[in-house]
Amino acid sequence: MDVLAELTGSIGSVGYGLAAIGPGIGVGIVWAAYIQATARQPESAGLTRTYAFLGFALSEALALIGFVVPFVFGT
Amino acid sequence: MDVLAELTGSIGSVGYGLAAIGPGIGVGIVWAAYIQATARQPESAGLTRTYAFLGFALSEALALIGFVVPFVFGT
Amino acid sequence: MDVLAELTGSIGSVGYGLAAIGPGIGVGIVWAAYIQATARQPESAGLTRTYAFLGFALSEALALIGFVVPFVFGT
Amino acid sequence: MDVLAELTGSIGSVGYGLAAIGPGIGVGIVWAAYIQATARQPESAGLTRTYAFLGFALSEALALIGFVVPFVFGT
Amino acid sequence: MDVLAELTGSIGSVGYGLAAIGPGIGVGIVWAAYIQATARQPESAGLTRTYAFLGFALSEALALIGFVVPFVFGT
Repeated sequence: MDVLAELTGSIGSVGYGLAAIGPGIGVGIVWAAYIQATARQPESAGLTRTYAFLGFALSEALALIGFVVPFVFGT
Repeated sequence: MDVLAELTGSIGSVGYGLAAIGPGIGVGIVWAAYIQATARQPESAGLTRTYAFLGFALSEALALIGFVVPFVFGT
Repeated sequence: MDVLAELTGSIGSVGYGLAAIGPGIGVGIVWAAYIQATARQPESAGLTRTYAFLGFALSEALALIGFVVPFVFGT
Repeated sequence: MDVLAELTGSIGSVGYGLAAIGPGIGVGIVWAAYIQATARQPESAGLTRTYAFLGFALSEALALIGFVVPFVFGT
Repeated sequence: MDVLAELTGSIGSVGYGLAAIGPGIGVGIVWAAYIQATARQPESAGLTRTYAFLGFALSEALALIGFVVPFVFGT
């Protein structure tokens, strides 16, 4: 058997890793904004909570799609 | 059997992963700005909501296009 | 055996490395926001602590998923 | 022996390198926030010190996991 | 001997290069925060100096580990 490179594994894990960079930062930014806004105006906590969870979910979804993508394109 | 590299998978998942970095951060920035603006000026929540969803959708679209692109160029 | 490149190892470690970039920054942003918010409004520490741990856990989870992913796609 | 590329080494060091990007920035953000918060409200130094060390440790851990990962997936 | 690619060297230097990105930014953030905090509250310089050096050292260490890692995994 000729082995031209001893690297092993699926490129799909690189795909997920790349897809997790943005959401990892984005989720942090959303919660940081919610923490600072709640600390300054505690009475706004209920008003902005919906958008904190919305922003978090929409950003996190991009990483979870990155987990599914390799199954679509072939692992 | 000649194995030129034991790496498997489609480079399309790497393409999606790269395309998801920007939107992951961008979506977080948009919602962070909306949370902080709403906490400070609660009366502006209705006025800026349209643009929060617009900004989110336009940024997220770039990642979703990255999901479709490999089908166009070949997986 | 012909070895055409002397690179060794599994691409899975590259996948984890990429997946750790975003959470590494995101976790820092969350705690930085909690530190600054607590220093300015010490009375808000209890109110925002839940969200600091929530934001940290949701961001960190993306890196831990990156640790598991290579087992799913093949190391 | 046919050597088609003279690159040597383990891809594991690339994995660690990538895993160190995020924590390198995240640790800096955490301590920067603690320095600025302490300078402005010196009386809060004791209150936020716990969270500065917590945030630092949780972010740094991601890089140290990146050091161990190649042993799991194969160097 | 057939050499099909004229790239030479060890991938370990790429690993160090990547590991230096994050600390390079993080160390800058720490000292920038110390400079701005000291300029605004000169009386806090002694109080925060410990944490400036602590934050710098903990971030810098990640890059120095990146220098040692290739010896562990094989250059």
